[in-house]
Amino acid sequence: MASRISKDTQLCISLSGRPSNIGTRFHNYLYEELGLDFVYKAFRPTDIGDAVAGIRGLGIRGAGVSMPFKEAVLSLVDVLHDSARAIESVNTIVNDDGALHAYNTDYQAVVDLLAAHDVDPALPVTIAGSGGMAKAVAAALRHSGFTEGTVVARNEVSGRALAQKYGYTWRTDATGLTPGLLVNATPIGMSGGGPDSETLSFPEDAITAASTVFDVVAMPPDTPLVRAAREHGVPTITGDEVIALQAALQFELYTGVRPTDQQIRRASEYSRQ
Amino acid sequence: MASRISKDTQLCISLSGRPSNIGTRFHNYLYEELGLDFVYKAFRPTDIGDAVAGIRGLGIRGAGVSMPFKEAVLSLVDVLHDSARAIESVNTIVNDDGALHAYNTDYQAVVDLLAAHDVDPALPVTIAGSGGMAKAVAAALRHSGFTEGTVVARNEVSGRALAQKYGYTWRTDATGLTPGLLVNATPIGMSGGGPDSETLSFPEDAITAASTVFDVVAMPPDTPLVRAAREHGVPTITGDEVIALQAALQFELYTGVRPTDQQIRRASEYSRQ
Repeated sequence: MASRISKDTQLCISLSGRPSNIGTRFHNYLYEELGLDFVYKAFRPTDIGDAVAGIRGLGIRGAGVSMPFKEAVLSLVDVLHDSARAIESVNTIVNDDGALHAYNTDYQAVVDLLAAHDVDPALPVTIAGSGGMAKAVAAALRHSGFTEGTVVARNEVSGRALAQKYGYTWRTDATGLTPGLLVNATPIGMSGGGPDSETLSFPEDAITAASTVFDVVAMPPDTPLVRAAREHGVPTITGDEVIALQAALQFELYTGVRPTDQQIRRASEYSRQ
Repeated sequence: MASRISKDTQLCISLSGRPSNIGTRFHNYLYEELGLDFVYKAFRPTDIGDAVAGIRGLGIRGAGVSMPFKEAVLSLVDVLHDSARAIESVNTIVNDDGALHAYNTDYQAVVDLLAAHDVDPALPVTIAGSGGMAKAVAAALRHSGFTEGTVVARNEVSGRALAQKYGYTWRTDATGLTPGLLVNATPIGMSGGGPDSETLSFPEDAITAASTVFDVVAMPPDTPLVRAAREHGVPTITGDEVIALQAALQFELYTGVRPTDQQIRRASEYSRQ
């Protein structure tokens, strides 16, 4: 280690209210694997304005942006790319010689995964949730040509607003919906022993009849929803695919190098140990 | 490496107009040797205000400050400690829970070395130079009780001002001076093949008659001045002692841990490879 970092080593960071070790381990693993002169470290900013000033002032190469800073940095960057503009939310900042470029690789990852899994945009789609990830998912679906959509959310304000933005309909529960593509963009099914960790975000009959089930929850990768879909032979797209792909896109934006799928998989596994 | 850095790893940095690898290698070597969860990296700030904002905003633990930022950061910190106030120059910032404390460990190292080498403060002292390092040396000498001093400097404005500040006299050349403690605080004797690299900053007869010769030039540690003194059996204090001690003081301010002299020596050797 001591022999690796030099004055020329480029620093990438993350800005998060509650940092985990995943990004730090993921990126440093790949830097080493690929022989790139970079180092990565998570930060919990005390002041987001000062933190972004530091990216400029120190010449930090890139920054992952997490809750609660994804909207706050919109006004602090110089160039807002389509992926960030589409959902007015930034998860990646790249410092190109002092110009801060903002992207949202969550959005981009959803777009890319829908294409990679060959999901037919003629299918009706139902999105559970109306939070930050649901916004990214809805925007990505609309961008990918899905015109018939339903947003299922208990919160009328955010649910209705999200549905209207993309010409989708809003409803409070998922009973009796038209199957097709089902997307869970809520934390339901996330590990941690909470009351929702064993709950399904869609009724069992909808899952059985679905063409594809897409769960954005990544921990665990085999959520109750994903397991139920697999039991019935329904194709799935999982949250760990989203996380791995969005991280690979970030990695490429920072370094200019796109790791192979296998390298991404190994780095993801390593980052969760 | 990849396995060592985590979200909890503390970052220390340096801010310099022309960073070298020495600090990065010195600190990272000792972090590893001592098993401390820190990482160090040199930066060349594009904007010193933004860079210091970044120290605050990101919660960077400490920053070494080099030319041309040593005076500029005076107004950007929260607490100015005696060592920095004495010479109105900062070479070390420590971030204590958001409060930025400023020190000058060059000054402190000179004070400590004069004591460690038992140099008698009753001796007359001659300081060659009137730049930043000469200011630190003069302030440290005066603080250590040296009341009879001469500043030798071609620049009348800075030479006279420095001498007057501490009740010393100013002159333009070193011929016919009273021997005692001789301190070179100019770049004369520094390696690099420049016209001054083989020059002596004091006349040979003064060196021969001196009680102690102190050269702040660290590269090489055996400058022509130091070699001339040793040839005549005159005790020396060398620039690499200053650099090593000031770095050890910085290291302790950042980490709370004081490395042993042997560890410092090994880290210094490693940092120059």
